[in-house]
Amino acid sequence: MADESAVELLADAKSLIRAGEWGKVVALVASLHPADLVDLSLDLEESERRELLDRLPTDIVGEMFGFVEDDELRELIRSVGVEDLPAVLEEVDDNVAVDVIQQLEPDEREETLAALDREEVADLMQFREESAGGLMSRGFVALNEGITVQQAIDYLRVLRPPADRAYYLYIVDNEKRLQGTVSIRDLLVSAPRTTLGEITQRDIHAVNTQTDQEEAARTLQRYNLLAVPVVDDEGRLEGVMAAEDLIDVLQEEATEDMYRMAGLDEEEALGAPFRRSIRLRLPWLLVNVFAAFAGAIVVGLFHSTVEKAVVLAAFMPVVANQSGVTGYQTSTIVVRALALGEIRGNAQRVLAREMLIGLANGIVVGLLLATIGLVVTGNETLAGILLVSMTLASVVATLVGQLVPLALRALGADPALASSIFVTMATDAMSFLFLLGTASLVIGRLD
Amino acid sequence: MADESAVELLADAKSLIRAGEWGKVVALVASLHPADLVDLSLDLEESERRELLDRLPTDIVGEMFGFVEDDELRELIRSVGVEDLPAVLEEVDDNVAVDVIQQLEPDEREETLAALDREEVADLMQFREESAGGLMSRGFVALNEGITVQQAIDYLRVLRPPADRAYYLYIVDNEKRLQGTVSIRDLLVSAPRTTLGEITQRDIHAVNTQTDQEEAARTLQRYNLLAVPVVDDEGRLEGVMAAEDLIDVLQEEATEDMYRMAGLDEEEALGAPFRRSIRLRLPWLLVNVFAAFAGAIVVGLFHSTVEKAVVLAAFMPVVANQSGVTGYQTSTIVVRALALGEIRGNAQRVLAREMLIGLANGIVVGLLLATIGLVVTGNETLAGILLVSMTLASVVATLVGQLVPLALRALGADPALASSIFVTMATDAMSFLFLLGTASLVIGRLD
Repeated sequence: MADESAVELLADAKSLIRAGEWGKVVALVASLHPADLVDLSLDLEESERRELLDRLPTDIVGEMFGFVEDDELRELIRSVGVEDLPAVLEEVDDNVAVDVIQQLEPDEREETLAALDREEVADLMQFREESAGGLMSRGFVALNEGITVQQAIDYLRVLRPPADRAYYLYIVDNEKRLQGTVSIRDLLVSAPRTTLGEITQRDIHAVNTQTDQEEAARTLQRYNLLAVPVVDDEGRLEGVMAAEDLIDVLQEEATEDMYRMAGLDEEEALGAPFRRSIRLRLPWLLVNVFAAFAGAIVVGLFHSTVEKAVVLAAFMPVVANQSGVTGYQTSTIVVRALALGEIRGNAQRVLAREMLIGLANGIVVGLLLATIGLVVTGNETLAGILLVSMTLASVVATLVGQLVPLALRALGADPALASSIFVTMATDAMSFLFLLGTASLVIGRLD
Repeated sequence: MADESAVELLADAKSLIRAGEWGKVVALVASLHPADLVDLSLDLEESERRELLDRLPTDIVGEMFGFVEDDELRELIRSVGVEDLPAVLEEVDDNVAVDVIQQLEPDEREETLAALDREEVADLMQFREESAGGLMSRGFVALNEGITVQQAIDYLRVLRPPADRAYYLYIVDNEKRLQGTVSIRDLLVSAPRTTLGEITQRDIHAVNTQTDQEEAARTLQRYNLLAVPVVDDEGRLEGVMAAEDLIDVLQEEATEDMYRMAGLDEEEALGAPFRRSIRLRLPWLLVNVFAAFAGAIVVGLFHSTVEKAVVLAAFMPVVANQSGVTGYQTSTIVVRALALGEIRGNAQRVLAREMLIGLANGIVVGLLLATIGLVVTGNETLAGILLVSMTLASVVATLVGQLVPLALRALGADPALASSIFVTMATDAMSFLFLLGTASLVIGRLD
């Protein structure tokens, strides 16, 4: 969120826009940070936003594109208008331009690329959107290790690379293969005649152009880097991913996992259009109808048992709910551990451990349930049924909670994908089976 | 995850450790990145880890502390041993030392602080662990705007600040109030006689020492910074938070939200000790028992309705499950939006919008349910009951899904806190109320 003075400025700008005082708006807006300007423009009505973006200089609109989240990007593009896009994209970094163009329809893409005429942008478009290649920029500084510190400094003074790109210099050999990095700090504190080779940090943490962006982001986090170099299969330096972009990746991936677990599409943000939200959520709700019927079918099988002891109907949701939560706890841990790269060779140990936890917790919860059941109904048989079925359901819930994400991953799907729906389907059905099944065995003693 | 060559090295190191060839181990380990070394040591048995850490030079152990996640920190501390801690902490950054000491018991803390004798560490201990003050380092470079670029470079050559701390120089006035920043890149490409004031970037994005670490991390992300300065109430520069630490905060907060929503404690990681896992999960399961009884009580109230039409028992879990998923979708969106700072003044519009989505989805799902009910039972009244109750339950689910996190926040609690439990409690009870309540009104036509 913007700080207080920015919030005030935003309010001022908004009233000026409403009043149509565009001269003042443009002057005021020039003093805003692009990130704040993005917020302001997204707060406006569509027509106001169009007018604002139309009146702003293209370099300011370009800067805004560098500070917009992926889910807001489309809205901004629409307001700028595809025909005005090339002029704006002339002003932005190559990887930002790629990001923007990837949001367009195929025919608009070609037009924009043709009008833009920036070779490195067209060139970056070959990479998959969610790969390191799709996120990297060509705007890095690569030097040979033979040159001296003074020569490197002179070169940078001529080149004047953008400030946010110039923390590491990349040392490459004559075939452009990455040999290591030199931080600007080391350049600054070294004697002018030192060669770069003498101060090169050769512990390389590069990723391949094909590497998934999530893994690239984990490399950044793991080794505390400020940028991650991207190389091709021969180790040639192809580009660099900035920390700012990889941080966004980490946040997007976390949102994606949370959303997917709940059966939501990651493209749905809070402000998404109404019809889009319906379209994105309804499919999972319909899947859930059929998933929920798994439980209904089990209940249907034990129709006569329920008829003989309707009290079971009241305990059905308790056992189901309880094992649902247990299964969801386990699947949350597994999904997050997979996302953070924490599950390595230890899957079996984890499996056994979770089931033991399920057993222990199941017994405690089962005893509590049995006690409540006994107090409320005075029926000892019911108490026994509750203890047995709750314990069984709890153990199976931890098993299901693990198997669902692991199975999804084994099938090549996202482990988080609608986990909650699949887990609940299984825990519901199992809970009813254990509760009503146990009850049917001793039904004579239940009435 | 480590790259392939590192994985091989790790395997080699492990077999050397198992073979007790410590001379070779220490030589091999010196070539590993500290992050990989942390992984290796956590993969070992407790006794092997102790021996390894005992034999490694203190500076290498110190480096390891800079690359360990919070949840693994305690394990590493235990293996080093509290008595050897001060020697290791002499080697680490002040904020890392603070992190480590905060994990200790109160009496161990005082001992370690006394033995350590680093004033800035004791001084940083005054700040709350999860605040900007608790995360910042005093290791920044602050200069006056009157000095020249050449003087600044000469100063840096003498000072030789650590590479990961030296991207921004902070410009302060005579009262140490923060005036702006100069990036090393600007220093490098500017004429030697330029004053720092001329190249100072005055758009300050600082946070207060009391600011929550999550908000500080959002500032970093929002403005694409590589470090966030921390100031006191008078605007005096107190410290700097590095991107690497704030990235960890973003990841931890995402994990925390996912865990809390599922009724898990954020301190439970995949490898947590068995008894700790039980202790952390059981309380929420017990809360859930009582939450689940809300549904059971409603079913109990309509005991005679269920008795007259047992078929309702089979549809109970379907309606409950469906509105549970709907409520959870909404609460996931709200929790994540709160975490990302996306809910500002627009809460009411969001509320109305979600309920409309709930209505639309409820009608579609209700129609599907009604059709299935009609086909299976041939009972038109049942079909009508399913349509009406599913629609009502769906609308209320979206309401509950929003109100739970917003209410938790209004109460000063974490909006994510056990959301799934509270949401499910309400959606279960409401679903049964609508289904059985509607049924009781037309019970004569149901048989």
